[in-house]
Amino acid sequence: MPNKTITAPKGFTAAGLHCGVKQSGKPDLALLYCPTGAKAAAVFTTNAIQSAGVIICKKHIVTSPIYTAIINSGNANACTGAKGLAAAKVMCSKVAKELDLETEQVLIASTGIIGQQLPITKITAGITNAAKLLRDSQTAGLNFAKAIMTTDTKAKQAVRTFDLYGKTVTIAGTAKGAGMIGPNMATTICVITTDAAISKPLLGKALKNAIGLSLNRLTVDGHQSTNDTAMILASGLAKNKTITKQDAAYRKFSAVLSDLCNNLGKQMALDAEGATRMFKVVVKGAARKGDALKAARAVADYDLVKCAVHGADPNWGRIVVAVGSCGVTLDPATLCVEIGDIFVFRNGKPTNFDAKRVSRIIAKKEHTITVNLNVGKHQDFCYGCDLSREYITINADYHT
Amino acid sequence: MPNKTITAPKGFTAAGLHCGVKQSGKPDLALLYCPTGAKAAAVFTTNAIQSAGVIICKKHIVTSPIYTAIINSGNANACTGAKGLAAAKVMCSKVAKELDLETEQVLIASTGIIGQQLPITKITAGITNAAKLLRDSQTAGLNFAKAIMTTDTKAKQAVRTFDLYGKTVTIAGTAKGAGMIGPNMATTICVITTDAAISKPLLGKALKNAIGLSLNRLTVDGHQSTNDTAMILASGLAKNKTITKQDAAYRKFSAVLSDLCNNLGKQMALDAEGATRMFKVVVKGAARKGDALKAARAVADYDLVKCAVHGADPNWGRIVVAVGSCGVTLDPATLCVEIGDIFVFRNGKPTNFDAKRVSRIIAKKEHTITVNLNVGKHQDFCYGCDLSREYITINADYHT
Repeated sequence: MPNKTITAPKGFTAAGLHCGVKQSGKPDLALLYCPTGAKAAAVFTTNAIQSAGVIICKKHIVTSPIYTAIINSGNANACTGAKGLAAAKVMCSKVAKELDLETEQVLIASTGIIGQQLPITKITAGITNAAKLLRDSQTAGLNFAKAIMTTDTKAKQAVRTFDLYGKTVTIAGTAKGAGMIGPNMATTICVITTDAAISKPLLGKALKNAIGLSLNRLTVDGHQSTNDTAMILASGLAKNKTITKQDAAYRKFSAVLSDLCNNLGKQMALDAEGATRMFKVVVKGAARKGDALKAARAVADYDLVKCAVHGADPNWGRIVVAVGSCGVTLDPATLCVEIGDIFVFRNGKPTNFDAKRVSRIIAKKEHTITVNLNVGKHQDFCYGCDLSREYITINADYHT
Repeated sequence: MPNKTITAPKGFTAAGLHCGVKQSGKPDLALLYCPTGAKAAAVFTTNAIQSAGVIICKKHIVTSPIYTAIINSGNANACTGAKGLAAAKVMCSKVAKELDLETEQVLIASTGIIGQQLPITKITAGITNAAKLLRDSQTAGLNFAKAIMTTDTKAKQAVRTFDLYGKTVTIAGTAKGAGMIGPNMATTICVITTDAAISKPLLGKALKNAIGLSLNRLTVDGHQSTNDTAMILASGLAKNKTITKQDAAYRKFSAVLSDLCNNLGKQMALDAEGATRMFKVVVKGAARKGDALKAARAVADYDLVKCAVHGADPNWGRIVVAVGSCGVTLDPATLCVEIGDIFVFRNGKPTNFDAKRVSRIIAKKEHTITVNLNVGKHQDFCYGCDLSREYITINADYHT
């Protein structure tokens, strides 16, 4: 079986284990290592309150090369003050010591409950163990993917292999999702590896673009966490001619990276807390680009739409309410809504559609809602998921 | 037992009955009548998509005196095009004919499912019956209150009696709430009667102020419907010296009206779809007035906060995430959060609070979350309610 984990690209080893952060005994510490050093880039949450890991990682990401990334789950190390910041530094320096690196060559991320201090002794002991377990195997990659999960029910992984001027290049990624996923952010935690040779600035540009078109277009509950981080490490070991300008090779790399992130985003939507299905909202005919995205997000974020999708209910009135409520330029007389390829509302009037047929479309794993404002030429989209009783069950009792 | 319905103020009769809009057989048509004529005012949804009733009512509200208001539930008559608009006009003209009035002396509102044409023949027959049933009794007032309900489980009513320069003045109101209640709107449907003598402009000013401080500060799912309407009719039969300027009498009337609307708002929050408890979010120390309200709404609207309240879970991290996510000016180092009177987060750091004690505070019917941004002097507030499995059950299957 081909390796579908983040150890698939040449030059990466990984490990994942339980060190004691999670009381459940599930994996909670993940280590990635690129012995030859990697070009790296990252995007972070835009929440004004940022975790200690985000604060430290933002400083370290300017370093080149980056050799490693340490991630813990079960504790966000956010809202933990100076003590939390010190703990994040200790995590990085411990990894640096184990792998004989400088502290600033280590990337870091945390995810989990906010406001509790990290059990740093357990984590440093775990880092010692993780360093010994580093392998380039599929098992090691899967262990890494599992160790970054919180309320995810499945490891989320994707891999893409493509040709770049005669050389085979691989990109692989893993992400953790679940709740607290809104647009305007990186995502919760997303780690991508590639063996492509590419300059650090272009790697950053490609990542920002890819996340912008995928994970930033996904909304589960409309908010961004304090910890959202997406990072990419490029080992260069595919030995392609290094991408240093925005040429055809860059565009190909960028397109494949976007496709991979899009796939991870869909896995996140389908495994969002309690989610049973997802949907894409396309808004066309907007007066401004920003209007199109705003309206798409308003629909994808609206609890009543999410409930209707959960019930496979063609309640298009809620779609219209969300669009009308969000403050975009519109004309009630030109507004159209399609579910799948069926018009349910056309030029401000309901249509005689087959409700059972539309219900079957909504009941699929994924469907598209198309809103045409018909007042301009701009278009954008967003992904959402349904809202179920299970979301409440998960989130009413997560803390205590 | 004193009359606690909208027929309590002098000069009003009401009726409520089932005419056939709702398949359940529950009351769906409500008629209010003031034979001597009333000064009237109303506030409406700011959703760009507005129901036929809202469009018509906005035209009629400028008339003085207003004699009557006709409201149907079970069908919103929204997104129904020219046919829906014609049906709303028929409703008004039918009431005018029954009560020997001009069409523009009739106020109108509708609430219920969006996008279906009104069964106008059933409604006109119902109007004939309702006109015969008009009484000033408590039973008639309660029938009215029940006939405007959709997924509400209880009729929402409030009455206030007070002295105005030696005359006893009464204000009474009824509202329907449930889902689709966001700030920046009137509310779903709210009908208020009073026997105060007050000029039409000041009645409008007092209503706008009262709704602004009560129903506009309530959020159930952050969106406003196509139909939100709050109306007040003043018969003047208390025979107080007519309020014509913003004097002490106006301020007293205005304060009592605000208190009554606040009470109706709380009834709506506690009877929101699936809600079991409510909470008030107070944001202090904001750099701008708008920031305070924005942050309060962000917290009250955030599904993860609503779930935590449902679970009586002191998960203050979600409160911090909502505040950090909403784009207001803040300093992570000065941010404080209190639940009830207990600090759970102080100057950017978690406190050692008694989680069981805080959980007991949250488990009450109503509690207050106080966020102090500590970056300015502005303050505002918002009401929210918890999010339960029942909300999903109600909203996944409302339509089909």
